[in-house]
Amino acid sequence: MSEPERANLQALDRIRVVLVETSHPGNIGAAARAMKTMGLRHLYLVRPAQYPCAEATARASGADDLLARAVVCAELAEALAGCTLVMGASARLRTLRWPQLDPRDSGARAIAEAAGGGTVALLFGRERTGLSNEELDLCQYLIHVPANPEYSSLNLAAAVQIFAYELRMAAGAALPEQRAEASEAPAPVEAVEGFYEHLESTLTELGFLDPENPRHLMRRFRRLFGRVRLTESEVAILRGMLSAAQGRKLPRP
Amino acid sequence: MSEPERANLQALDRIRVVLVETSHPGNIGAAARAMKTMGLRHLYLVRPAQYPCAEATARASGADDLLARAVVCAELAEALAGCTLVMGASARLRTLRWPQLDPRDSGARAIAEAAGGGTVALLFGRERTGLSNEELDLCQYLIHVPANPEYSSLNLAAAVQIFAYELRMAAGAALPEQRAEASEAPAPVEAVEGFYEHLESTLTELGFLDPENPRHLMRRFRRLFGRVRLTESEVAILRGMLSAAQGRKLPRP
Repeated sequence: MSEPERANLQALDRIRVVLVETSHPGNIGAAARAMKTMGLRHLYLVRPAQYPCAEATARASGADDLLARAVVCAELAEALAGCTLVMGASARLRTLRWPQLDPRDSGARAIAEAAGGGTVALLFGRERTGLSNEELDLCQYLIHVPANPEYSSLNLAAAVQIFAYELRMAAGAALPEQRAEASEAPAPVEAVEGFYEHLESTLTELGFLDPENPRHLMRRFRRLFGRVRLTESEVAILRGMLSAAQGRKLPRP
Repeated sequence: MSEPERANLQALDRIRVVLVETSHPGNIGAAARAMKTMGLRHLYLVRPAQYPCAEATARASGADDLLARAVVCAELAEALAGCTLVMGASARLRTLRWPQLDPRDSGARAIAEAAGGGTVALLFGRERTGLSNEELDLCQYLIHVPANPEYSSLNLAAAVQIFAYELRMAAGAALPEQRAEASEAPAPVEAVEGFYEHLESTLTELGFLDPENPRHLMRRFRRLFGRVRLTESEVAILRGMLSAAQGRKLPRP
């Protein structure tokens, strides 16, 4: 792991999730689980309706260490003490009083802030009514999750999961661009041409090519295998198969 | 809204979520809610432990129309019928037998495929054990959700939420990918599976498969042709070639 990657993952430890007046303890447990899967650890609960609660622990499913260390606060200001960046999640688009980000941009900003030594809070409001305007006034940014305009009823823990996922992606967890064959480079053109010659001679022996127009079908095969980017070992497998079809003759050199 | 944007949002309607042997009905309901918030509609349930179930309806919280229209299947193949692209979610990184994508890249690929007229299935396995290797063999790609290596216990519905979110993000951004074969759509999964069966029986007759481990080489072929996205006419050509190699027997129906 490179030094910047390590710093980014450590940044996850400078990010808090703050749940304001959560009604259902199951959502608190599920939010803790969502956080822990992505490497977040700091949970703050502002005036939870019921807490601690067996239902929260059950839904946390192994993330009960986060619940045990959760900080329960009477006032939102306590949960935000020491934070340098505060962002609030909103189910609906508000008027433009607050600058708005999507979860992806908010993840990148939060990681940049935390990697630079800051402390970040992500606020999530009540299940039915979200955050009040007074609470949003404490946020530098409002985060809006894109959703189906006809049904934008995102579960609280599901929203936490999306943000936690975006934080981890921003911290460098995205997979590098996938190679078709991760471990193996495409075969050079001469190997692929050797395969086409072998294919054509085999198909001729099988009587499968139209003698009037053998190129037509070969062109279809070139279009097909041209899309694959065959590797050397795949060329070897295909030529072995052709040799078997020819009665186990060795492929021509 | 521009024409490409509209096409991308419509593409969400050509994407299925397939849940295989889900144990907890609550997860089915929560997955339906996660889907609906992001504009997905098509839910397939393969051998659910308990379904229909009041707990599923309760957790769906207004997405019960998706549950009502969910297709319950005895076999995974039924759920995949007609699909041109199949991707399977995996909690852990597997060996490189399957090409792997993160949720972001998989969302972009799924939207590009569906916007181009294809049908996409996203597979999610059992809560405790995920998808079997045989089920993963039906996938062109494996999708890996980045997670905390010390606790990667992502809830099933939370995983569905992340993918559904990435699909919606991709639907707002991605343009349809240029088709490899502009004029022809990819063959549906059952046609491609028919080709694999025909290939396996032919290779067996030719003595080309290791009787000790026939699956190994077949998996190599799946990786190879999985990258091609065969069209129907290409499947017909390949099967004609196999029949010729078998001594001009007709392909099995």
